[in-house]
Amino acid sequence: MADPRSVEVLKEALQRLPGVGPKSAQRMAFHLLERDREGAQQIGEALRHALLKVNHCSRCNNFSETDLCGICSSSKRDDVRLCVVETPADLEAIEQAGVYQGMYFVLMGSLSPLDDIGPEQLGIDQLLALVTAEKVEELILATNLTMEGQATSDFIVDLMEPLGVPVSRLARGLPMGGELEYMDSGTLNQAFAERKTIHS
Amino acid sequence: MADPRSVEVLKEALQRLPGVGPKSAQRMAFHLLERDREGAQQIGEALRHALLKVNHCSRCNNFSETDLCGICSSSKRDDVRLCVVETPADLEAIEQAGVYQGMYFVLMGSLSPLDDIGPEQLGIDQLLALVTAEKVEELILATNLTMEGQATSDFIVDLMEPLGVPVSRLARGLPMGGELEYMDSGTLNQAFAERKTIHS
Repeated sequence: MADPRSVEVLKEALQRLPGVGPKSAQRMAFHLLERDREGAQQIGEALRHALLKVNHCSRCNNFSETDLCGICSSSKRDDVRLCVVETPADLEAIEQAGVYQGMYFVLMGSLSPLDDIGPEQLGIDQLLALVTAEKVEELILATNLTMEGQATSDFIVDLMEPLGVPVSRLARGLPMGGELEYMDSGTLNQAFAERKTIHS
Repeated sequence: MADPRSVEVLKEALQRLPGVGPKSAQRMAFHLLERDREGAQQIGEALRHALLKVNHCSRCNNFSETDLCGICSSSKRDDVRLCVVETPADLEAIEQAGVYQGMYFVLMGSLSPLDDIGPEQLGIDQLLALVTAEKVEELILATNLTMEGQATSDFIVDLMEPLGVPVSRLARGLPMGGELEYMDSGTLNQAFAERKTIHS
């Protein structure tokens, strides 16, 4: 270890970031200490501030600095529709598409037994309580089309059945701009199975 | 922006890390706030501590918490040999190979006019002063075999010529475990040009 102790400590700490191994951590530490000390300060302060301020919305479970987040406390949303997403990034993507005006529930992950993420970690109880307490006319499942996302979706479908809550899921098929030549067979299978009649 | 302000600020701050764009920053912020708040705290503290403690060794220019770094203040090193490297990571790699017992000078980068990194930023004056003040019997250039690294090396060679300091550079050729089939033509060219006679 030719590096001083506090550089080693910093390199180790940076490896707690997802996707960052020893080499990237080394590069980041070098960059911050040699070329961008202001940036290092900015990151440190942003972390401290976020840790202090950010909690979860008591209704939708998304990150929030207030008890209710901006969407849950808005009077302009269609509050009989509830869209279930895995992460804040997914919610953001839907908001930016501007196609949906209802409410959300953010699971903050997907079922993943290997990572010890079960129904409890995903706040499924909170979702159940919400659906029971409020007049939800449509629960829209918008989890990812991955193994974990689909397992999560299936789990919620089973859970909602006895409650008689109408449940839908996003359409599956070719993405816009998608070229058949480059589509995986799973997508093509879905696109064929759910093809729409134009003339009959 | 559905995310609370302090999450946005954190995502922006994380983008100051090299190689981190909006998507990775989003993923990192989510991970830290939802899955690893302890890690977030650790990173924040390591940054604060490193910014406070880490400076440069007054002799070799490497990161150091003290005026002279561990290597420069050691009495066990061969102090007539001086190896010039670009970064602390390069120094670390050489130390770990265990092949070299001399001193170092760390440029903290390489000549790169596009990034406004010239001789001044690399502490070339400090290197010159060091070589003039101390009895250096061999200056070993160990910059990277990139365009920037070679330009830096050439620059130092020209600089040392009038001083009469003996200068060497690391050998070039096939890396250990290298398979000819996968070698680039530049490496093969070097390996042929600098081939060694076994029997003559």
